[in-house]
Amino acid sequence: MFIVDCSRVNEHFRGRYFSNKTENFNKIHGYDGQMTMVLIQVHDKCETIPNTDMNEAYTIKIDKDHSIIDSKSVWGALRGLETLSQMITRAGKNQFRINIGQINDEPRFTFRGFMLDSSRHYLPLHAIYETLDAMEMNKFNVFHWHLVDDQSFPFVSTTFPALSEKGAYRSNFIYTPEDVQKVSHYANDRGIRVIPEFDTPGHTQSWGKGQPNLLTQCYDAKGKPKPNVYGPINPVLNTTYEFIQKLFHEIAQRFPDQYIHLGGDEVEFGCWKSNPILQEFMKTNHFGDDYAKLESYYITKLIDIVQNLNRSYIVWQEVFDNKVNIRPETVVNVWKGNGWPTEMKNVAKAGHHVLLSACWYLNYIGYGTDWYKYYQCDPQNFNGTQQEKNLVIGGEACMWGEFVDASNLISRTWPRACAVAERLWSPESFKDYKNAKPRFHEQRCRMQVLGLKVEPIEGPDFCYCDDAI
Amino acid sequence: MFIVDCSRVNEHFRGRYFSNKTENFNKIHGYDGQMTMVLIQVHDKCETIPNTDMNEAYTIKIDKDHSIIDSKSVWGALRGLETLSQMITRAGKNQFRINIGQINDEPRFTFRGFMLDSSRHYLPLHAIYETLDAMEMNKFNVFHWHLVDDQSFPFVSTTFPALSEKGAYRSNFIYTPEDVQKVSHYANDRGIRVIPEFDTPGHTQSWGKGQPNLLTQCYDAKGKPKPNVYGPINPVLNTTYEFIQKLFHEIAQRFPDQYIHLGGDEVEFGCWKSNPILQEFMKTNHFGDDYAKLESYYITKLIDIVQNLNRSYIVWQEVFDNKVNIRPETVVNVWKGNGWPTEMKNVAKAGHHVLLSACWYLNYIGYGTDWYKYYQCDPQNFNGTQQEKNLVIGGEACMWGEFVDASNLISRTWPRACAVAERLWSPESFKDYKNAKPRFHEQRCRMQVLGLKVEPIEGPDFCYCDDAI
Repeated sequence: MFIVDCSRVNEHFRGRYFSNKTENFNKIHGYDGQMTMVLIQVHDKCETIPNTDMNEAYTIKIDKDHSIIDSKSVWGALRGLETLSQMITRAGKNQFRINIGQINDEPRFTFRGFMLDSSRHYLPLHAIYETLDAMEMNKFNVFHWHLVDDQSFPFVSTTFPALSEKGAYRSNFIYTPEDVQKVSHYANDRGIRVIPEFDTPGHTQSWGKGQPNLLTQCYDAKGKPKPNVYGPINPVLNTTYEFIQKLFHEIAQRFPDQYIHLGGDEVEFGCWKSNPILQEFMKTNHFGDDYAKLESYYITKLIDIVQNLNRSYIVWQEVFDNKVNIRPETVVNVWKGNGWPTEMKNVAKAGHHVLLSACWYLNYIGYGTDWYKYYQCDPQNFNGTQQEKNLVIGGEACMWGEFVDASNLISRTWPRACAVAERLWSPESFKDYKNAKPRFHEQRCRMQVLGLKVEPIEGPDFCYCDDAI
Repeated sequence: MFIVDCSRVNEHFRGRYFSNKTENFNKIHGYDGQMTMVLIQVHDKCETIPNTDMNEAYTIKIDKDHSIIDSKSVWGALRGLETLSQMITRAGKNQFRINIGQINDEPRFTFRGFMLDSSRHYLPLHAIYETLDAMEMNKFNVFHWHLVDDQSFPFVSTTFPALSEKGAYRSNFIYTPEDVQKVSHYANDRGIRVIPEFDTPGHTQSWGKGQPNLLTQCYDAKGKPKPNVYGPINPVLNTTYEFIQKLFHEIAQRFPDQYIHLGGDEVEFGCWKSNPILQEFMKTNHFGDDYAKLESYYITKLIDIVQNLNRSYIVWQEVFDNKVNIRPETVVNVWKGNGWPTEMKNVAKAGHHVLLSACWYLNYIGYGTDWYKYYQCDPQNFNGTQQEKNLVIGGEACMWGEFVDASNLISRTWPRACAVAERLWSPESFKDYKNAKPRFHEQRCRMQVLGLKVEPIEGPDFCYCDDAI
């Protein structure tokens, strides 16, 4: 059935598509023909690891008795197969239908991400796999894995095993090297890059449990150390950078993607300000009272380390706002809801790549339907030149984990994230959410058929498989 | 292990409790004794169907080597077993602990309900069973089943099979007589009454599909019938009451509880006003322009029918507001969020039983934690005499189905409904939600252990079984 020699991805093809659609099918009265073959032509590359330059364009030609998926790379073939499987509709019991025609398709943005937070609540592997399945069905291509945060450190570092031993919620709520590799393979097989985030210098309370002297000791008003109260990573110690160098060396080995997300958001200066050693350091370096300079000092050294590992990086927008010296190919992740168009403009004007998350914080829920507003948010909708707009590489939906774990992750995320997916893939001209609604309804039902517990798209309705959820 | 001769409920005992706690357990260092027996004494009744007079009080005595659950009825034994199972805590791998002591417990309110809507979205039986399991764990004792509504009619009537044949979303999205019986048994085994709601005369669009001439034909401004546009049930035709009589006769046979919920909410008068036959009827009966009188006319006849079936009834508050002549034991269900304390007062002052739902519409969701406000809502917190407050039989949490189906029902409902459950069971003096928080956290984890995908109680945290969800 498949003529393509990209063995690893090929295996994924076989299991994923059509499996429940080809057995015992009946002919439909008045049909034009019977599709017995899908020919998949991959012209250039049989890559096994999706990357920044991945080519996802494809053509589908459907004729009376066969169809051809034509693409430059295996990633285009994957996207084409997804589309083809969605073009097949039910016509009755064991009857399926597809219209004759041709489709030329390619994504509008190269970075179509989804962020998952496995620190606020631990997420078992099956929840991550389900997320990756859902992502593939909606043509997302970057899994931004917010692995660790203040609350827990589930990532197992072989260099610093104490980080997860003491920083994970529980000894079995961890991601071992094997787990990470499984997730990477699972994602890559679906044409999804994996970008890990190790957010510093803030959001690191859990790091301190397994790595003594990493966090800043906080002091009280009388100048005494507060027992067991720590702030962000201590930026003035050489040991900090030795630790960071070794940890990121391991991270770079573990995650093959060109990019690592370095975080850099929401650094609280209160503890830094209270610490006499840091006060002294501020004086020596003529930073005055501007602790953003101390933050920049840290980030600059972090960036040097990561660059020496031949990795590029994504940072949250504060790193740009604080005027850290970042390289041109750096991706600035705009997340603050207020004034994001201005921020996008400023980042692009400075010549950096920019990635929008601000309008797609799916963790913020409310009563009723909210995907309309996700659909109507456009990453290039700011007052910029064409050159500036071209620096927008895409966007990503974020599902922060404060109130989310495996119990509600899938149902809460989907189908709301479908709106983000279509915004990032389809042409800008697709603006009318009313047209999108029946598509998302159908997509939700498709996802349910594959076992994903996706919630209703809006008010009262049903899928043909509601009795099987 | 169990000394009680209530065979049907006894079977439920065996499977439900302790099953995963008794195998291969290890002794704890320094323990006082080892509990090898739970003696259950039921003094009065081995009822098999929970009812309005069910006695749920129980006493638990825990001694060094055994414990005794003492109750008047089997329902008290069930509640006691639930409590006992919750008193057992983990002390390590295969190690469990329980403190010696005595508990005397009984519910504050006799009606502790949970309402599920299976019309806006169809709910497969497993979703209803899971809900009943969760209800039992939280000592709810009434399952208010909002079976049908405008959107679909999944209840299979053997008297009027066309109602579900034409009114259900799909031919298999139905509740057959066997399904209804299974649900009833499943609920009754857990000490839960089943009260079906057949809401009329509004909310009946789906009824009209299978029962011609039941709904009111709407007319346009020029006095012409609008094709296929219908309003509430037509209250002026004899055929309407013949239909209602037969349908409720079947309902009373199918559901053994003393009460049926008759609905009566949100009747739109627009269509009634447009219909010339109804206009004529209004004149003949000297109703003037007050269509609430027409509604009362309908409800009064409905109530006569149900009374003749020897059933009592619950109605939504509009029936009381419209001054329908209702019998004293009628339960008025207060649901409107605005001014519910005044409404409670008025209903009780008129001498009726009153049931509060207004502050417990769990379908209204928002970002973050909202169970605090459910916990702080008290059904007797209105300006009334003690006699009036005594007419408050309890309350119920409602999960309307516009945005809810089996994909998100359990995770969205629980643990939020735990707050309602505790409010309705525990003494009024339990007011501090801060004290309740750790209980609900633990309860959530217990529910997860039984396979219920219950969402986090509030911000970042974990259960010991997060990896097993």
